[in-house]
Amino acid sequence: MKTERYTRIVTAREPGGIEVIELEDRILPEPEADEVLIRVEAAGVNRPDLMERQGLYPPPPGAPEGFGLEVSGRIAYLGSNVQGLELGDEVVALVAGGGYADLARAHKSCVLRAPKGISLRDAAGLPETTFTVWANVFMRGGLKPGETFLIHGGTSGIGTTAIQMAKAWGAKVYATAGDDIKVARCKDLGADEAFNYRDQPWDQLIRELGGVDVILDMVGGDYVARNLSILRDEGRLVHIAFQKGSRVELDLMRVMMKRLTITGSTLRARSPVEKGAIAQGVYDHVWPWVENGQVRPLISQTFDLEDAELAHGEMERDSHYGKVLLIP
Amino acid sequence: MKTERYTRIVTAREPGGIEVIELEDRILPEPEADEVLIRVEAAGVNRPDLMERQGLYPPPPGAPEGFGLEVSGRIAYLGSNVQGLELGDEVVALVAGGGYADLARAHKSCVLRAPKGISLRDAAGLPETTFTVWANVFMRGGLKPGETFLIHGGTSGIGTTAIQMAKAWGAKVYATAGDDIKVARCKDLGADEAFNYRDQPWDQLIRELGGVDVILDMVGGDYVARNLSILRDEGRLVHIAFQKGSRVELDLMRVMMKRLTITGSTLRARSPVEKGAIAQGVYDHVWPWVENGQVRPLISQTFDLEDAELAHGEMERDSHYGKVLLIP
Repeated sequence: MKTERYTRIVTAREPGGIEVIELEDRILPEPEADEVLIRVEAAGVNRPDLMERQGLYPPPPGAPEGFGLEVSGRIAYLGSNVQGLELGDEVVALVAGGGYADLARAHKSCVLRAPKGISLRDAAGLPETTFTVWANVFMRGGLKPGETFLIHGGTSGIGTTAIQMAKAWGAKVYATAGDDIKVARCKDLGADEAFNYRDQPWDQLIRELGGVDVILDMVGGDYVARNLSILRDEGRLVHIAFQKGSRVELDLMRVMMKRLTITGSTLRARSPVEKGAIAQGVYDHVWPWVENGQVRPLISQTFDLEDAELAHGEMERDSHYGKVLLIP
Repeated sequence: MKTERYTRIVTAREPGGIEVIELEDRILPEPEADEVLIRVEAAGVNRPDLMERQGLYPPPPGAPEGFGLEVSGRIAYLGSNVQGLELGDEVVALVAGGGYADLARAHKSCVLRAPKGISLRDAAGLPETTFTVWANVFMRGGLKPGETFLIHGGTSGIGTTAIQMAKAWGAKVYATAGDDIKVARCKDLGADEAFNYRDQPWDQLIRELGGVDVILDMVGGDYVARNLSILRDEGRLVHIAFQKGSRVELDLMRVMMKRLTITGSTLRARSPVEKGAIAQGVYDHVWPWVENGQVRPLISQTFDLEDAELAHGEMERDSHYGKVLLIP
């Protein structure tokens, strides 16, 4: 097994643009008893990776070195305290770092058997989006079948997953997107209505449609007040990022009078127990939707691990539809 | 029964100070099938009554005429669709308006048998505070035994009730109050720590104590950011009023990183079904605490119905400790 402990990782010399990205060789430290090593089939590229590269999102203490928060692959090493998995099992995992690699370390609570019916490679696009949507739209936002749900950025990795999961759950789904092609893609994925946020007053149009119950937002800025204005009584606004900033001026009278909830969360900082609870929900609810075709991981583009800077560049251009993957 | 349909009510000629308050005679309209009439023993005076008098808090459509949101008394008339209550039963009720009166109309979902062990008069101080605290701290804020709870204005009607209910539930309780006598009263009621907000940096002191899980706030303004700064991970901030204003500038990054919830509610605008669910919780959980002495209605002062303007004046001086009641 010793030979499997060598890996390439993708890291950055210093905070900066895509030019700071480097591929380096490492000897992996001995995994903990509760950890596994995964021989990576593919690694998902996510927006927090770009922020980490820019120095805006420091990894939590103890995280494995290098970029990358999700992988698919085969179990290559089992910690002494890991049950229910075997060497060679095909899995996906949320990792605390170091996913852009040949070998990645994962806590057992964040490892799930890969769903049937899709390739192991494509399954790399599932963990970050399905965990995020399950944790925020379903657990935190409490979306119920029959309620109305709005997702901003409907063609992103999170967006495509949220549209499909909310539809599979029996919700009515609205989405916003940045051009008419993306708007059409949102509808292809099942959105009941989709709006081009560059030239349509989405808040006014949604208000005319009767408002929404749950919003998943990664925009912030002026979207916060607009989101609050379209929430129905008892509505929930869940933040997972603030691309337009997190400092906002709000009138909380609206929150009290409509009995709204403003909340949010990040995945990476949470404890293994909490991630395990999310993983269980994903396994119980989302994997059946993947296996019956209601939720498909949409893969926009794949890059070789050596070309991680191209993958980051692709993400930054914001022209992708679905996930960007790296292949070791 | 016809003679019982005459009542005095307290209303206002026009929006303004206490001088606009008038006592008037009315013939009550026929109650609906789901309503009862209550021969009022005592009526609670609440801060929303003062705001309504000033024209700042318009009553919901269809509300009975006149001030007053809670009463105790005896059932004097039963609508055709009311079960489980008899003429003469001693009850308390949350009313949609018109509580400062000889006879008050109440929806059956908001009528509860008066708890044993306290006078019917004192029981008038229970509905608004116990319903508000149950709905906001327990149902909406989800306070759990063993968690830490902060109430601002610990000697108000809401404050005294919240301290006692949270202690009876097994929470650790902190309170703020405006002078040292009030601080001592908070501790007498069971608060583990209490802070004089005029000369103590309560947010800093509470942060040093390890923070809190749930806050019930009626202050708003600069308290919002200070409240967010002392909430632990997964903490909940529940607003029921904004004495210092509801327009605030916030950094929602803190909400996302700590996975906080900002929410709030008002009681008056809610549907009979929702009020009924709150009433059931109060009956099941709070009445036993009242009957075993863990939760006592604290009556600051009583006034004759004719002196409603004096009662409003007393509330506005903010010198009361517990509830102000009107006696017809």
